[in-house]
Amino acid sequence: MIQAKVAEILESDQFLQEHHIKGWVRSFRSNRFIALNDGSTLKNLQCVIDFENTDEDLIKRINVGAAISVKGTLIESQGSQQRVEIEVTDLEILGDANPEEVKLTILSPKKHSMEKLREQAHLRVRTNTFGAVMRVRSRLSFAVHKYFQDRNFYYVNTPIITGSDAEGAGEMFKVTNMDLKNPPKNEDGSINYKEDFFGKETNLTVSGQLEAETFALGLGQVYTFGPTFRAENSNTSRHLAEFWMIEPEVAFCDLDQNMDLAEDFIKYVLKYILKHCKDDLEFLAQRQENEDKLKPKAERSDMNLLDKLNFVLENNFKRVSYTEAIEILKNSKPNKKKKFNYIIEEWGADLQSEHERYLVEKHFKCPVILFDYPADIKAFYMRLNEDGKTVRAMDILFPGIGEIVGGSQREERLDVLKEKMAELDIPEEELWWYLDTRKFGTCVHSGFGLGFERLVQFTTGMGNIRDVIPFPRTPQNAEF
Amino acid sequence: MIQAKVAEILESDQFLQEHHIKGWVRSFRSNRFIALNDGSTLKNLQCVIDFENTDEDLIKRINVGAAISVKGTLIESQGSQQRVEIEVTDLEILGDANPEEVKLTILSPKKHSMEKLREQAHLRVRTNTFGAVMRVRSRLSFAVHKYFQDRNFYYVNTPIITGSDAEGAGEMFKVTNMDLKNPPKNEDGSINYKEDFFGKETNLTVSGQLEAETFALGLGQVYTFGPTFRAENSNTSRHLAEFWMIEPEVAFCDLDQNMDLAEDFIKYVLKYILKHCKDDLEFLAQRQENEDKLKPKAERSDMNLLDKLNFVLENNFKRVSYTEAIEILKNSKPNKKKKFNYIIEEWGADLQSEHERYLVEKHFKCPVILFDYPADIKAFYMRLNEDGKTVRAMDILFPGIGEIVGGSQREERLDVLKEKMAELDIPEEELWWYLDTRKFGTCVHSGFGLGFERLVQFTTGMGNIRDVIPFPRTPQNAEF
Repeated sequence: MIQAKVAEILESDQFLQEHHIKGWVRSFRSNRFIALNDGSTLKNLQCVIDFENTDEDLIKRINVGAAISVKGTLIESQGSQQRVEIEVTDLEILGDANPEEVKLTILSPKKHSMEKLREQAHLRVRTNTFGAVMRVRSRLSFAVHKYFQDRNFYYVNTPIITGSDAEGAGEMFKVTNMDLKNPPKNEDGSINYKEDFFGKETNLTVSGQLEAETFALGLGQVYTFGPTFRAENSNTSRHLAEFWMIEPEVAFCDLDQNMDLAEDFIKYVLKYILKHCKDDLEFLAQRQENEDKLKPKAERSDMNLLDKLNFVLENNFKRVSYTEAIEILKNSKPNKKKKFNYIIEEWGADLQSEHERYLVEKHFKCPVILFDYPADIKAFYMRLNEDGKTVRAMDILFPGIGEIVGGSQREERLDVLKEKMAELDIPEEELWWYLDTRKFGTCVHSGFGLGFERLVQFTTGMGNIRDVIPFPRTPQNAEF
Repeated sequence: MIQAKVAEILESDQFLQEHHIKGWVRSFRSNRFIALNDGSTLKNLQCVIDFENTDEDLIKRINVGAAISVKGTLIESQGSQQRVEIEVTDLEILGDANPEEVKLTILSPKKHSMEKLREQAHLRVRTNTFGAVMRVRSRLSFAVHKYFQDRNFYYVNTPIITGSDAEGAGEMFKVTNMDLKNPPKNEDGSINYKEDFFGKETNLTVSGQLEAETFALGLGQVYTFGPTFRAENSNTSRHLAEFWMIEPEVAFCDLDQNMDLAEDFIKYVLKYILKHCKDDLEFLAQRQENEDKLKPKAERSDMNLLDKLNFVLENNFKRVSYTEAIEILKNSKPNKKKKFNYIIEEWGADLQSEHERYLVEKHFKCPVILFDYPADIKAFYMRLNEDGKTVRAMDILFPGIGEIVGGSQREERLDVLKEKMAELDIPEEELWWYLDTRKFGTCVHSGFGLGFERLVQFTTGMGNIRDVIPFPRTPQNAEF
């Protein structure tokens, strides 16, 4: 029912077979050679027309960007660029593309900046780079589901609109149905949220963790994979206001097992992509090499993309306690020479991205799992260690990306959890349901969150996170 | 690394093997028999303790809801209720559950109303019914991804926060970062959205279709599977303010192929569930039968759940044009006897759920695909037929559920699309990017949207849509 795809035809050795393909013209040269792409693969199919016996008006309409239907015979190619090609017997223009208008878009066959591609995000999937990234992203998504489902984790869709803002992971977007010009007000002038759609203040979720925990404490092992939001004014190449997160949560699982799970999971999905997205990854590796050549030597990658992926697969992530990390950083050259923007002076300091990068890229030269952080710089739900000052948290740091995973063993002891919440002024009434899970058969459990776009960035070698999501949402930008 | 699961042990025939299991007590009788559940299956594992040699204080703590760790030997069961059981050699209470407090919750082992389960949505995954529904939901999600990925569709995450509200599928929630008490205003008193996070008015998406179209017209075939939103004050058993939708979009695909795809897709996922969720479906079928017995005869299902699923698998969906459907309805008994709330008088009438149910449940007695609707009652982007008054739309109607799929061939002709938008006062500036896709290699293409929760409802036989999603969002309700 679905048409014959370029990807299949390029693999075929059924010579002289007739084919019917529909796609878009990527280039047309010498009035004979059409490079046809239908999105099924990075590669184009060469379709050769009999230019002497083809109507001149038709040939004029074979322009870059046009949608065409081609019927023809599969033959061995005479050219060195491709193994097979189609000898066209019938050609039809399905949708024209005016060359003058195409010139003004990123469809025109020349190098465009990534910024320009972003401005035309509705067309960029028709470029080699972005098409490759989106194919890899799609396959990565599936690898995520396959990993968990094969291991009998249950997928849980935690709510996007949430009435609780206790997680405290960052600034939240408000969701409302009120007339913003004239919102209903109480006598004291405050907003009367009882009149709003949900009868209370609601926000976009920053994490599905707390809800996922309630599910893990019944179904055993679950994972989320959905959009999360941050209303933070961060205009960087690493932040989005809307991004997708993966959050597994496992009952009867401690922090060590949690680290094992995270490492095994990341290696699985990378392996899956290396196997299933070979063409796209090779193209992206080449692309990164070309980009690197334009950079000053110090900023170039020391490994090509495929080598980097294989390196992660083949080496254990280095597990280092926060306390050890602080010692390493304190004694590091950039700290002693005051090259860091934030000098590490003592235990308890929050690590900045410059410190994480130093540990991963300079010191260990491999992915690093930092664990047992000071309680004061981590969230309320993390399990307090026996030392009374550190919590069973872990972050995974990746070269070039920084933090890709943040996780912890959760505080399962009702009294300790309540004490911590009181300390931080988190009202028990708001999280009554979360506390309930510690009353009725509480148990050791752990989980982590992985920012999906950062994983796509790492896998594709893309420098800017806006180029690994279809339509990025950032401050001052919600176009399309 | 992950503990031994009840599901595996129940299938094992390695008698005398030692096992270590962690889970929650579902029941404890005669001071000897623990029914242990860990979420890996509907079924409990019977764990038999040597009550004479077990500490009395420990026995007192084996309460419904408690989390326990059990070590023991797999033996053939003496009882008739189960094939195997565990002879406990070691038992540890991991998390207590106070029986007095459990009594007040839905964890107490008696029948609770679905309303009560909803009020304790953080605990309901520990009940048989809701646990079964959530396992089926998870597997259904995977079946969705597997269907499309096996067929080389690409998963695309269309934006949740959207700056365009042109789709017109319903009322939207506003997303904002402004101080609602003192929003920035323009001189004329209107809200100054330039000061808001995205620099413009933004909403929660009602559909990813328009963005998915831009991707299909490059990658060929794509699908979305993500949350969508409606700020409609519908307090029914069929509506949610937040729900998950699946939206495939295919280039070079007409309406007939679109219907083929939808029918094939639905049959695939149902078949997958019948194969992979046998225990849960059998339980849910039994549950529905029991529920039915309490209902007046006229309201009872004429088929049990499994028969109904198999019936859908084995029969072609009936394809009927809107015009034929109107004739059938006009001449139907309930129309002539004025039993319908909305009497069908003439062509052009919008079909209400009572009419859809009549067609599906009384007249055809099978799933029905209605197509070629009047243009006036359908969205602007649907392709106009040659008759100038109908569009290439199709809805799939299911027994007991009503509309489960809504789709169409999209209007690919730039001039016709622009005319229609002008008619409906949809500004071209707002959808410039959508129109662009019709300028550069436009082509016949189609897609549909399927409400995932309705599919879960149909598959599980649950009457209320609030009972097939973890934490339902409805008017006046955003708890948890």
